[in-house]
Amino acid sequence: MKHLGRHVLAEIYGCGFDILNDIRKVEEIMVNAALEAGAEVRECVFHKFSPQGVSGVVVISESHLAIHTWPELGYAAVDVFTCGERVDPWDACNYLTSHFCAQHMTARETKRGIIPFAGQVAVNQ
Amino acid sequence: MKHLGRHVLAEIYGCGFDILNDIRKVEEIMVNAALEAGAEVRECVFHKFSPQGVSGVVVISESHLAIHTWPELGYAAVDVFTCGERVDPWDACNYLTSHFCAQHMTARETKRGIIPFAGQVAVNQ
Repeated sequence: MKHLGRHVLAEIYGCGFDILNDIRKVEEIMVNAALEAGAEVRECVFHKFSPQGVSGVVVISESHLAIHTWPELGYAAVDVFTCGERVDPWDACNYLTSHFCAQHMTARETKRGIIPFAGQVAVNQ
Repeated sequence: MKHLGRHVLAEIYGCGFDILNDIRKVEEIMVNAALEAGAEVRECVFHKFSPQGVSGVVVISESHLAIHTWPELGYAAVDVFTCGERVDPWDACNYLTSHFCAQHMTARETKRGIIPFAGQVAVNQ
């Protein structure tokens, strides 16, 4: 059975408070991570929380990159979902780990869209 | 060790073409799923692809809900990430499965932000 996409959930630890609390910097790094991985950026939305923390998503033609930061813990939760063969989600994760100057990253990939019953899925067409 | 959040990746199969290809309907269902789970909606971004398919994200105070649809396969890839004790990501997943009239849903939860070295993570504060 084929899968439609790959979804990497990455735990990025040991980052600086200031970089994780800077909404413009977080957005810039996320967009560049998408571009570095060869993705086509479609939409971005980022939100700054009080007293600290940033959440944001980059919607790409190939799916999305999302981030939530806890500056007070030096931690960012990232997920990168890509479809097709051309874009590698690990390239984006490695870019993020490097550009957030993380001390440590762990990640796991899940295959998405494993179509188990091809004869049943296209309903109402 | 405590975790900061719960991230559910859900595979939603056997949905109708029309509902998965209707950007306004997909956004409405996603926002209502967030509200149904007790989340606070902060930002939304949705994108319609040609010839078909919708991608979108609802950023909530408690993290995010994301969706990517393949109407031609009757399939939607959903992920719901929530932080804190108050919002249950499974409530949102079940709402989505119901309101997309899915024939079948499988999902897996991953704990996010398991902080293994509390003494090291808060750097540069």
